[in-house]
Amino acid sequence: MSPTIYRHVMTETGAPMTVTTEEWSPEVPPDGQVLVEVAGCGVCHTDLGFFYDGVRTRHPLPLCLGHEISGRVIAVAPDLTHLLGKAVVVPAVIPCGECEPCRAGRGAICATQFFPGNDEHGGFSSHVLVPGKGLCVVDEELLAASGVDLAMLSVIADAVTTPYQAILNSDLKAGDLAIFIGIGGVGNFGVQLASAMGAHVVAIDVDVERLEGIQDFGAEHTIVSGDDTRAIKKEVRDWAKANQYPLTGWKIFETSGHPGGQSLAVALLGYDAHLAVVGYTRAKIEMRLSNLMAFDATMRGTWGCLPEHYPAVVRHVLAGDVQLANFVEKFPMSELNRVFEDLHDHKIKKRPVMIPDFSSSV
Amino acid sequence: MSPTIYRHVMTETGAPMTVTTEEWSPEVPPDGQVLVEVAGCGVCHTDLGFFYDGVRTRHPLPLCLGHEISGRVIAVAPDLTHLLGKAVVVPAVIPCGECEPCRAGRGAICATQFFPGNDEHGGFSSHVLVPGKGLCVVDEELLAASGVDLAMLSVIADAVTTPYQAILNSDLKAGDLAIFIGIGGVGNFGVQLASAMGAHVVAIDVDVERLEGIQDFGAEHTIVSGDDTRAIKKEVRDWAKANQYPLTGWKIFETSGHPGGQSLAVALLGYDAHLAVVGYTRAKIEMRLSNLMAFDATMRGTWGCLPEHYPAVVRHVLAGDVQLANFVEKFPMSELNRVFEDLHDHKIKKRPVMIPDFSSSV
Repeated sequence: MSPTIYRHVMTETGAPMTVTTEEWSPEVPPDGQVLVEVAGCGVCHTDLGFFYDGVRTRHPLPLCLGHEISGRVIAVAPDLTHLLGKAVVVPAVIPCGECEPCRAGRGAICATQFFPGNDEHGGFSSHVLVPGKGLCVVDEELLAASGVDLAMLSVIADAVTTPYQAILNSDLKAGDLAIFIGIGGVGNFGVQLASAMGAHVVAIDVDVERLEGIQDFGAEHTIVSGDDTRAIKKEVRDWAKANQYPLTGWKIFETSGHPGGQSLAVALLGYDAHLAVVGYTRAKIEMRLSNLMAFDATMRGTWGCLPEHYPAVVRHVLAGDVQLANFVEKFPMSELNRVFEDLHDHKIKKRPVMIPDFSSSV
Repeated sequence: MSPTIYRHVMTETGAPMTVTTEEWSPEVPPDGQVLVEVAGCGVCHTDLGFFYDGVRTRHPLPLCLGHEISGRVIAVAPDLTHLLGKAVVVPAVIPCGECEPCRAGRGAICATQFFPGNDEHGGFSSHVLVPGKGLCVVDEELLAASGVDLAMLSVIADAVTTPYQAILNSDLKAGDLAIFIGIGGVGNFGVQLASAMGAHVVAIDVDVERLEGIQDFGAEHTIVSGDDTRAIKKEVRDWAKANQYPLTGWKIFETSGHPGGQSLAVALLGYDAHLAVVGYTRAKIEMRLSNLMAFDATMRGTWGCLPEHYPAVVRHVLAGDVQLANFVEKFPMSELNRVFEDLHDHKIKKRPVMIPDFSSSV
């Protein structure tokens, strides 16, 4: 097994990524690792942050980005033969599993966690070397029956699992009122998951088209966002009242990663509210911290999702509770630079999944 | 039983409170209520907010303020005879116990909760009518043996129990690193409680005298606060490292209720941190919300303390784990207006407890 590994490599902020090759010579991967032939790799807002905004990768440049990876295991370390040939989703955050935080169930803050496309070369490539631990093996029969292909499952690695972890952290229960702000590449999966778990979901976005797109996928009510946060809070409240849904204990999910969305999320805080900070922006916002006290409310940030929760999310997707097809768009990986640009310019509205096409393009 | 009830009544923002009297004629209190002869009533930052800053009381003015009440039950509704003659602490927030949030253990957001000195006349008075439910009965033998008098226990009703609830919410464990910002009338009790529960406690304040006062009462390390929040974070980190205390999962308690203290609290956020918002200010601060995401961290506000936790706090006080004497100062209640002024001008540094002296003063 000695394939050529092709990688789109970032060399400096904003400079077009270029393809490099490496002849993979070892007979077997190092202990604990496996080589995955990439089926698809999703493009995340975090990749744009690395590429355009100077957010630093933990591994110095040059580096191949991409942390939403699905594929097939084609080579394994001697202790991981059970993974050979398996279809897998590679979690975006793979904790070591052995340190004190890991043993306490706090793998999100594991200091030696592995984050492909940040700690080492990622998935905008033909093959990627990753820890075998934590890989989510996909049941081939269920996959075949679902009509979803393996490449599409790549987005589970961050876009679907991160809101799932945020939902678990919020202690969401059937009958709760959940509000998603930002119905982009993460929020639309959050809406579907929360709805599948029995919540009454309100979707808020500045983009009418996105709101229309989510109406048949779990959003009971949609609101076009704007500057008048009081009016939006009143609209949610009136709608909840009219439907006899809860007026307290709202679960608010900020997935836009924009300061405007964050300010709205904070304005929606009420008694016993839980605000999950899922989207990322370096911008600061102004807020009255003491509202948390007056409302006995909570704000919690979510970093990735523990690998142990991946199988449940894959089940939701393969069962059709969470629909990918309407929210994901495939592109040949050779178009990576253009897709980054178009996503940055908001010309692409669905989650892009890059499909390796190196043999034909190089 | 028909005593004269004397009350210091607030009529408008900042105007000196005046004493009113009411002849209490009913033979027995209304159903579910008891009449408490006030032993002492603590003065809280929240009272100053009502009196000076235009924060509105839920009951319209004129109103007698004061929600840190201890005393003795001298008259009871027919269903509450077991409380007659008992020494009690009156919780600052008494949930109804019957609504949906109450049954779900979320009494803090009970819509019909009773808050003396806010919903009805409070404790800057000779007697106060309160719900019997939730009163914390004090064991007379333990009280006598402790050397603490009943009047002093009044501060438990908010100043000691609120940080206790915040500590419970933070899931603090023995060996954790806890940081208290603001070593005033609430923070100093928080330091003692966290220390009694096995945490390593850092106390931070702008006031050197306060820091000196807490050194023998649970603060392992003290830091004089200032504008350089990075330097303060580094100092905590270096100290934790030197002592092999945790570098993640810090429990941060903001009890100053000042925007400067809140900004420092936010700057101290790190991996898996829990920031408890205990102090109140209407001011806003700037913060990067996404730090919560990057750190997988939590911010939580705390409104009062559930009555069910009061007995544990009283035990801590009567056992001497939490010392009141050094942090509380008694004043005759006739000096209420002056005490408000001096507290507002930061001339009083201990928690004032007002002792009724109406028979001699009126």
